[in-house]
Amino acid sequence: MIMNKDNIITIAQRAKQAGLKLGVANTDKKNTALKFMMGGLLDKKAIIMQANSIDVDNARKNGLSKAFIDRLTINEKTLKGMIDGINEVMTLKDPVGEITKAWTRPNGLLVGRMRIPIGVILIIYESRPNVTVDASALCIKSGNAVILKGGSEAINSNRAISSVLSEALKLAGLPSDAIQFIDSSDKEVLYELLKQDELIDLVIPRGGEALIKAVVQQSRIPVLKHYKGICHVFVDADADIDMAKLICFNAKVQRPGVCNAMETLLVHKDIARRFLPEMIDMYRKAGVEIRGCEKTREVVGDIKSATEEDWYTEYLDLILSVRIVDSVEQAIEHINHYGSHHTDSIVTNNVVHSMKFLKEVDSSTVLVNASTRFSDGFQLGLGAEIGISTSKLHAFGPMGLEELTAQKFVIIGNGQIRE
Amino acid sequence: MIMNKDNIITIAQRAKQAGLKLGVANTDKKNTALKFMMGGLLDKKAIIMQANSIDVDNARKNGLSKAFIDRLTINEKTLKGMIDGINEVMTLKDPVGEITKAWTRPNGLLVGRMRIPIGVILIIYESRPNVTVDASALCIKSGNAVILKGGSEAINSNRAISSVLSEALKLAGLPSDAIQFIDSSDKEVLYELLKQDELIDLVIPRGGEALIKAVVQQSRIPVLKHYKGICHVFVDADADIDMAKLICFNAKVQRPGVCNAMETLLVHKDIARRFLPEMIDMYRKAGVEIRGCEKTREVVGDIKSATEEDWYTEYLDLILSVRIVDSVEQAIEHINHYGSHHTDSIVTNNVVHSMKFLKEVDSSTVLVNASTRFSDGFQLGLGAEIGISTSKLHAFGPMGLEELTAQKFVIIGNGQIRE
Repeated sequence: MIMNKDNIITIAQRAKQAGLKLGVANTDKKNTALKFMMGGLLDKKAIIMQANSIDVDNARKNGLSKAFIDRLTINEKTLKGMIDGINEVMTLKDPVGEITKAWTRPNGLLVGRMRIPIGVILIIYESRPNVTVDASALCIKSGNAVILKGGSEAINSNRAISSVLSEALKLAGLPSDAIQFIDSSDKEVLYELLKQDELIDLVIPRGGEALIKAVVQQSRIPVLKHYKGICHVFVDADADIDMAKLICFNAKVQRPGVCNAMETLLVHKDIARRFLPEMIDMYRKAGVEIRGCEKTREVVGDIKSATEEDWYTEYLDLILSVRIVDSVEQAIEHINHYGSHHTDSIVTNNVVHSMKFLKEVDSSTVLVNASTRFSDGFQLGLGAEIGISTSKLHAFGPMGLEELTAQKFVIIGNGQIRE
Repeated sequence: MIMNKDNIITIAQRAKQAGLKLGVANTDKKNTALKFMMGGLLDKKAIIMQANSIDVDNARKNGLSKAFIDRLTINEKTLKGMIDGINEVMTLKDPVGEITKAWTRPNGLLVGRMRIPIGVILIIYESRPNVTVDASALCIKSGNAVILKGGSEAINSNRAISSVLSEALKLAGLPSDAIQFIDSSDKEVLYELLKQDELIDLVIPRGGEALIKAVVQQSRIPVLKHYKGICHVFVDADADIDMAKLICFNAKVQRPGVCNAMETLLVHKDIARRFLPEMIDMYRKAGVEIRGCEKTREVVGDIKSATEEDWYTEYLDLILSVRIVDSVEQAIEHINHYGSHHTDSIVTNNVVHSMKFLKEVDSSTVLVNASTRFSDGFQLGLGAEIGISTSKLHAFGPMGLEELTAQKFVIIGNGQIRE
């Protein structure tokens, strides 16, 4: 089928129907489909790599960056990574059908809350073809139909992969329409889909801020997203200095290009002279550019001055802004004002301060004495991650299988009526 | 302040600031504010009733219905009802700060999920001034700032009541801007507010379908709502006939004008001749108009024919559509096709059928052997109800205090870094 603005709605209708069937399938059947996906990716390895080589050639012709081409390329190792990912999802507990609470009312009604799938989920992503596999496995395991809209640069790879995944559903006796791929790079096609709030229940965009803003602007369907990760570490007056150095170095340097890397370091004035000079020396050796507030410059000299703009900036790079604050209160105020409600950490041995920070920092993940880099579905033990939400509706923070479910009320009585 | 399109944003900004403070206030302080609200409503009784009498006079002049004027009128009894409502919310457990789960990771990180307020909630409602009190009490108890937009017909009443509530916050040492009232009936003012997705976190419209559709159409903020309650009771082949009669009568007749009243009765073909004639006789004596499918008409004769349109209709009145089905599967199919994902009940003694119904009916509240009228926050033991959601994001079904919260990740370590 050639997909255009006028017929794209049939994709959503099919997904809705498939979702109703998949939603009541038992765990064994869904795991069987995941097994067929793993087998299919192996069997069709040659076809997938051939399709991928077209995308890679096009990317080279279009002069895309080496980093971009690295993310796009499927080789033996990335394919194994995809298969291992499915295997991991298979071992996770199926959230559907779980009774999360139950209680009895004075009139004898037994009331419970049962996890159910959300329905149909539209995933919009950029170049990495592994998202096609990860997102599909998570949606299928949680009983949700998925519509995949990958980046145009990976369209040949994604077409090949999604056809394998969809076929695996059929082999397991599940509706193949529960995984569908939007085989079009026309923006109008996507925008038409984003209007189908009667058919699609949730949109998860994964990618840069521009992509996410465009999706939010066009969508009539609820969107779970995060724009930015402006993450902070606050080194309190009585922090363990060695621990603080390890955490601050890890949070900034271990992988600076990701959303849970630190962008701003806040330091209590009473520890600044003992902590900052050596810390900044470590950063300099690792090639980190420092931009400091006036007080920071008094302590360590010879660094760039941080502007108001810096405190709002997600560098995603080896750049760090540093501010000296007077108190834990001022640190919290800075974070809630300039931050992005993503991930923030305090290094302290003061119990009162640690509890205050945990309670008052208005972010989805708040840590004491640990690196911001742990804000991640795998690291926190969710088993997998479908995305991160920095708004508070439905989910806040890393989202795993449970966040792909809703809960309905199930009630058992023996003839109760309202007086 | 005269509220217009250009300055309404300051209301939202103040709410945001107030929300941050209220969000970290402890339970005692919030309960103190609730006590001052109760006292204030008593103290200012004369002023409130005088303001209300202006609204009631206007409603009479404008020829509004007696039912409308009844809902609008504040007398000793309705005022006592409002005060009792606040008292009930005061006794409820504060959800903020609750650790709903906690676990330890292999590296020693202690990971927990902590309930926090959502932030700023905009409540949009029609004529009943008691919503001003109920919604404010629930939002304050759960640490959320609230912006109230009531119907223009109750504007004098709502202005008087909200000023008492806001004053009570101040007396308790909390920011009075955590309860603000939109003193304007200009639709453009509301529409401007609905664009402030950076300042307002959630919109809950309460009222008729037209109001809710208009809000959804204009809002860039997430909306929790239900359009319709097309609720079903399915009487299975081996239902207890006496129990079925009581439940079906209660679900339709006890209060036909509310969203959890039954609109369509589904009956298994094997019980239809034993059950339906007497049941329909009971309905007729209560003044219920019956519209049946062809098979129903064969069994009970002399009733109107149900059209395709009837199965989609929320009568909110003493009208009932009746269909005879072949199986529990057909009943579920009917409900998932024609229903509104609100509330549906099965009357059966068959365990397998009851579990199938609970699992497969795609509605927010699914009951076995009980009246649909129990789909209500108070009845289910949530303690209170801020609304009902029939979409699956964030909340599904009746919403209480917990549904006015989000959960953040709180993590305590002793120096962990990512490898």
